[in-house]
Amino acid sequence: MTGDGKRVTIAAIAHEAGVSVPTVSRVLNGRADVAPQTRELVERLLKQHGYRRRASRQQAGKAGLIDLVFKDLDSPWALELIRGVEDVAHAAGVGTVVSAVHRRSAATRQWLQNLRTRASDGVIFVTSELTTTIHAELHRLNIPMVVVDPAGGADLDVPTIGATNWAGGLSATEHLTSLGHRRIGLVAGPKHMLCSRARLDGYRAALEAAGADVDDALVRTGDFLHASGFAGGLALLDLPRPPTAIFASSDTMALGVIEAARRRGLRVPDDLSVVGFDDLPESCWASPPLTTVRQPLADMGGLAARTTLRLAQGLPIETPRVELATELVVRDSTTRPAG
Amino acid sequence: MTGDGKRVTIAAIAHEAGVSVPTVSRVLNGRADVAPQTRELVERLLKQHGYRRRASRQQAGKAGLIDLVFKDLDSPWALELIRGVEDVAHAAGVGTVVSAVHRRSAATRQWLQNLRTRASDGVIFVTSELTTTIHAELHRLNIPMVVVDPAGGADLDVPTIGATNWAGGLSATEHLTSLGHRRIGLVAGPKHMLCSRARLDGYRAALEAAGADVDDALVRTGDFLHASGFAGGLALLDLPRPPTAIFASSDTMALGVIEAARRRGLRVPDDLSVVGFDDLPESCWASPPLTTVRQPLADMGGLAARTTLRLAQGLPIETPRVELATELVVRDSTTRPAG
Repeated sequence: MTGDGKRVTIAAIAHEAGVSVPTVSRVLNGRADVAPQTRELVERLLKQHGYRRRASRQQAGKAGLIDLVFKDLDSPWALELIRGVEDVAHAAGVGTVVSAVHRRSAATRQWLQNLRTRASDGVIFVTSELTTTIHAELHRLNIPMVVVDPAGGADLDVPTIGATNWAGGLSATEHLTSLGHRRIGLVAGPKHMLCSRARLDGYRAALEAAGADVDDALVRTGDFLHASGFAGGLALLDLPRPPTAIFASSDTMALGVIEAARRRGLRVPDDLSVVGFDDLPESCWASPPLTTVRQPLADMGGLAARTTLRLAQGLPIETPRVELATELVVRDSTTRPAG
Repeated sequence: MTGDGKRVTIAAIAHEAGVSVPTVSRVLNGRADVAPQTRELVERLLKQHGYRRRASRQQAGKAGLIDLVFKDLDSPWALELIRGVEDVAHAAGVGTVVSAVHRRSAATRQWLQNLRTRASDGVIFVTSELTTTIHAELHRLNIPMVVVDPAGGADLDVPTIGATNWAGGLSATEHLTSLGHRRIGLVAGPKHMLCSRARLDGYRAALEAAGADVDDALVRTGDFLHASGFAGGLALLDLPRPPTAIFASSDTMALGVIEAARRRGLRVPDDLSVVGFDDLPESCWASPPLTTVRQPLADMGGLAARTTLRLAQGLPIETPRVELATELVVRDSTTRPAG
């Protein structure tokens, strides 16, 4: 496993594997646009010859920094991700530089400028919109990148880390059907985000499996923020045949649904059961404490940091796309339907 | 204002001011242990001669980084401070390295080790316990430091930034007395923290001014976290003569009090008024939305960043101790007492 002692080149690996040099580069950079069997072959050869990226080996640990880039720092789950990344990076002797790029005009340009000045061992993006400018520039600077929780889709050729959103939507809804609910509302996330779509599909699959109402009138679309949960909750509760339970696609929207119930004089869970998604610290602090689907945000951050550090050292990564498991956490906001 | 063109030394300034060289250094480093009139004189002379710290001028912008160091990354107000620091630093072309030191054994040593490897233009601590090790080492490395929201007291000889805790405790309690409450409970913060003591004193001052009950049985001590607010709330509600309103010294404790009321079958605000402290985003998401005292956390972070960057450039700062104003934010968790 320690190689043959001689320095092997990418060209030699490409020749032996019968693929092009750019293909070997793509495998080394953890890109997704390589066929699985090709990746496997190339990685086996890289390992066999003890290959390490030259540039990366020189760079690794030089900057002693990784960048964690958010669109905005306005969601409580940002802190969970920071915690996960910092924990792994700190232990590896690496500092975590936290930035927000989309709140200000020209902020992305400024961030790239800052990055050029001080260098970085790798970049973790927590944003769906990885602009082509950033993408091209990081490739040019030979800085590895990883994307956490992408909503944009499969066209990214960088490693991505997400959660099992479909399974989470399924388990939230199954919990409600198992309690006896048959009319279950959904406040979904934005339609263009894949994670929203996956949670919606999990919700529908559970309803169909239980023979419960599949009714488009029971689905409202929000933006993951509190106000949209409140509005969606009111709209659902004001239906001629309102639901007895509501699944909200984020915890903050679920808190909005609880407030909507209070405004309509309904008690949670006696008159309305509510399930959230995320398991932010806030969900324990709700009144009543919120039943929710745990998204392992700190673990996702930790894995993103480990993946980035591996790429910075020129080591291969397991797979370019990882989904960590979600888990139902039952607290006090759900019970059997009244009557 | 541009000086006399010749490079003036610290020794010359000290001679002219009739003070020692270390005293001039203390002024330059923003330390608190200098008499106000001495500081004023030294700063006037520094300005008059156009003095800039040599080492700092060379270093400024070299690292392109400031460090923001938390004890733990487990409180939602950490994110508010990160947001404030990042906003100012990012605009100045400086990256914000976020670390947590007290969760792990040896984590402080590791952080200092990381800092030595990669350098930093300045350090902002968000922790009461600035260990002598850190303090001595940063002085040795000539890295300026600023402390946000210190609870330890006035023996710190570095610039500190806090909030007007006494005035905040006063306004929270005045709000309740003005609504007609006369029996007002308090869930206080930890006794050893100055901010807790200041809020407690503000509470007592408002009670006395209004001729309301000053009763030690109405005061419970928590640790700013949810569980202690819940426990303190239950203890107060179970008193033979329970309060009609409770002021909690943090928002997360106030959410615990709301949950305690729900457990006792009481409605907020009809049966019990609740006021928090902090105005975290979470306080808008409570059910009902929380009346609270706004602590300008993002502004405090921004000021800490500006102060750190000024010190890194060898510029004088206004004052070594700043308290930013708190502000009462009235939402739906408070009303007149029943009956």
